Amino acid sequence: MCTLEKRGSLFILTFIGDGEHRLSPTLIDSVLSALCEVKSKATRGSVLITTSQGKFFSNGFDLAWAKAAGSSSKAMERLHHMVVSFKPVVAELISLPMPTVAAIQGHAAAAGFLLALSHDYILMRSDKGVLYMSEVDLGLRLPDYFAAVFRAKLHAISARRDVLLGGAKVKGEQAVRMGIVDAAYDSEGSLAEAATRLGEELASRKWNGDVYKEIRTSLYPDLCGVLGLGEGKFLAKL
Amino acid sequence: MCTLEKRGSLFILTFIGDGEHRLSPTLIDSVLSALCEVKSKATRGSVLITTSQGKFFSNGFDLAWAKAAGSSSKAMERLHHMVVSFKPVVAELISLPMPTVAAIQGHAAAAGFLLALSHDYILMRSDKGVLYMSEVDLGLRLPDYFAAVFRAKLHAISARRDVLLGGAKVKGEQAVRMGIVDAAYDSEGSLAEAATRLGEELASRKWNGDVYKEIRTSLYPDLCGVLGLGEGKFLAKL
Amino acid sequence: MCTLEKRGSLFILTFIGDGEHRLSPTLIDSVLSALCEVKSKATRGSVLITTSQGKFFSNGFDLAWAKAAGSSSKAMERLHHMVVSFKPVVAELISLPMPTVAAIQGHAAAAGFLLALSHDYILMRSDKGVLYMSEVDLGLRLPDYFAAVFRAKLHAISARRDVLLGGAKVKGEQAVRMGIVDAAYDSEGSLAEAATRLGEELASRKWNGDVYKEIRTSLYPDLCGVLGLGEGKFLAKL
Repeated sequence: MCTLEKRGSLFILTFIGDGEHRLSPTLIDSVLSALCEVKSKATRGSVLITTSQGKFFSNGFDLAWAKAAGSSSKAMERLHHMVVSFKPVVAELISLPMPTVAAIQGHAAAAGFLLALSHDYILMRSDKGVLYMSEVDLGLRLPDYFAAVFRAKLHAISARRDVLLGGAKVKGEQAVRMGIVDAAYDSEGSLAEAATRLGEELASRKWNGDVYKEIRTSLYPDLCGVLGLGEGKFLAKL
Repeated sequence: MCTLEKRGSLFILTFIGDGEHRLSPTLIDSVLSALCEVKSKATRGSVLITTSQGKFFSNGFDLAWAKAAGSSSKAMERLHHMVVSFKPVVAELISLPMPTVAAIQGHAAAAGFLLALSHDYILMRSDKGVLYMSEVDLGLRLPDYFAAVFRAKLHAISARRDVLLGGAKVKGEQAVRMGIVDAAYDSEGSLAEAATRLGEELASRKWNGDVYKEIRTSLYPDLCGVLGLGEGKFLAKL
Repeated sequence: MCTLEKRGSLFILTFIGDGEHRLSPTLIDSVLSALCEVKSKATRGSVLITTSQGKFFSNGFDLAWAKAAGSSSKAMERLHHMVVSFKPVVAELISLPMPTVAAIQGHAAAAGFLLALSHDYILMRSDKGVLYMSEVDLGLRLPDYFAAVFRAKLHAISARRDVLLGGAKVKGEQAVRMGIVDAAYDSEGSLAEAATRLGEELASRKWNGDVYKEIRTSLYPDLCGVLGLGEGKFLAKL
C-alpha cells in the first residue's frame, strides 16, 4: 500500500514493500485519500514527492484482480471500474495547489506511468526501471484521459508514437533524451537525494498554492476539460 | 501512377516511373483505391510502406492540369477539386488499422510532403530530395487539413514556422534535426533496406489493427475532427 | 516611449531611452498605433522588427502606476485595464500581414516577454538580458491569452513549466536550448546586425502579406480563438 509522511515542507507519498504496487481499487482509494490529506494540509511552500520501494514504481492496474472476476465481460467491468476510479487521482495531481515531483525508483507501466506523468517534475533511475505503455501490446483501448495526459505532458510527436503506438520500453537516459523525464540518476540514494533537493528548492519559493494551481491548469486546457477540472473558470479570471 | 505489392506482411505502395508523381485526380483516385484495398486485406501484423521511383516522392498537386483549365477561376476550381479529393487519402492513412511507413526516395513538396507526414514513421534520403511547402512562395492559401496535419505531426514551433511561413527547403539531415523525419539514409538501397527492416519489426509485433488505429486517432483529436474521423467516438470507449 | 522608423522594406519599432519600457496604458496605445500604421502601409516584402534601447526590452506592465491607485482593489482594476488593453497588441502581431522579428536587447519580463513571443522570429543577447515570467513569484493569476501565447509559441512542456510554474530567469544561450528564441548574440551590435540581415532576407521573398497572415493564423487556432481573431474564417477558405 502507500504511506504519507511529512518532512518539513515536503509531503512524501511512498508505495511501500517489494510488490508491483498494482493500482487495485484499494490502492487507488488509498492514494486518493493521501492526496486529499495533502491538499487539506497545504500551506505556502508545500511540495509533494511521490516515490516507491522495491523494483516497481507501479506496474499499472491490477489485471490479476480483474481476470479473477471469472468471465471476460466481468474482467472488463473490473478494469473499467479501475479506469474510472483512477481518473480523480490524475485530476487531484493536476489541480494540487503545490509543485509535485515523481521520483521513479523502479518500473512504471501503463497507469503507473500515467501516475508519474501527472507530476510537474519527473526524475527516474538510469540503472534500473523502464517506462512502458502496454496497451498496444495487450490490445487494450486507451482511456480518453490517458491519451489526454500524454498529449499534455509529452510534446515530442515521435516520443508519443514510440511509447503509445510502438510499445517502447524506455530506460532512464533515453527517457531524458525523449523529453519524458527531467533527469536520471544511477542509484536509489542519488535519486532520493535529488528529489529531496529539488523539493526543498521548490518549497523555498513559498509560492501561493492557488495561483500555482491556476497557472498549471492554464497550461493544459484540453486535459483539464477531459478531467472535468473546469479550466474555463480558471482562465476567465485575471 | 502507383502500384500495390504484397511482400509477406508488408503492403508496398509505390509511385512508379521517373516523373514528378503529381497528385492529379487520377493519381489521387488510384492511391485511395490502393489504401482501401490495403484496409480490406489487413490482418494482424500488416504494415504499409509508401515509396517512389525516380527523383520525386511526389511534387504535390497537378498544377499544370489546373492551369490548363483556361481561366484563373477554372484553375482554382480544379485546384479546389484536388484539395477536396485528397482529404480522404489523408483520412485513410490516419485511420488505417496498421503501422504506416513513408520511405521518401526523392523530393516531397506541398501535398506530396503532406502525404509523407500522414504516415507513422518517415524515413528519407540524406543524399538527395528536399521537403518543401510551396504555398507561401506561390501565394496560395493553406487548406484547413494541411495546417491540421502540420500541427499534429510536427511539434517544434520553429520547424512549423520554417516550413510553412519560411518556405524552407529541408534536406535529410536537417529534417532529422527538426523532428520532421525519423532518420535519413545516404542511398536508395540503404533507405529501401531500412524501410523494409522497420516494416518487418513492426509486423512482428502482430498488433490488433483496430486497437492500433484507435490509439493513433486518440493522439490527434484536432486533426481527426478536421478530417471528419469522429474521434469523439474513439475516445469515449474504454 | 516608442518610435517607428522605415528603412527600405523594414519597419523598425523601438522602445527608446534607458528606462524599463513598462507597458503603461500610454505605451500600450503608442505600440498599438505604430502596429496599425505598419499594417496600413504594408506592401509585398514588408517586415517588422521590434527592438529596444537601454538595459530593458520591456519589464512588463506598469505595476508602479497600478499601485499608485491608492487601494488594492483600485490597483487590480488598473492592472486589469492594462491586461485588456494589451490583448489587441498581441492580436495585431499574430495577424500582421508580414514577417515579424523581435530583437531583444535587454530584459524581457511578464507582458514584455509575451510581446517578444508574439513575433515570428526571436533573437536575443547572450551577454545580457533575461526572460522572466514573474506571475508565479508575485502570486498573480495568468490572463487567458498569456497562457494561450505560451501554449502556441513554446512547444517544450518542460520549458513552459520552467518559465510559468518555475519562475525561471532564462539567459540567451539557455533560451536557445529551450526553444524559446532562435539565436543569441554577444553584443548590441551583432544582435542589431543579425536582426537586420534576417529582416532583409525575409523581405527579399516578397511574400503576399494576406496569405502570410492566413498561414500564420492557421498555425495557432486556439490562440486565435482566445484573441478573437476568427480563425474559423481563415481555415474555411481554400
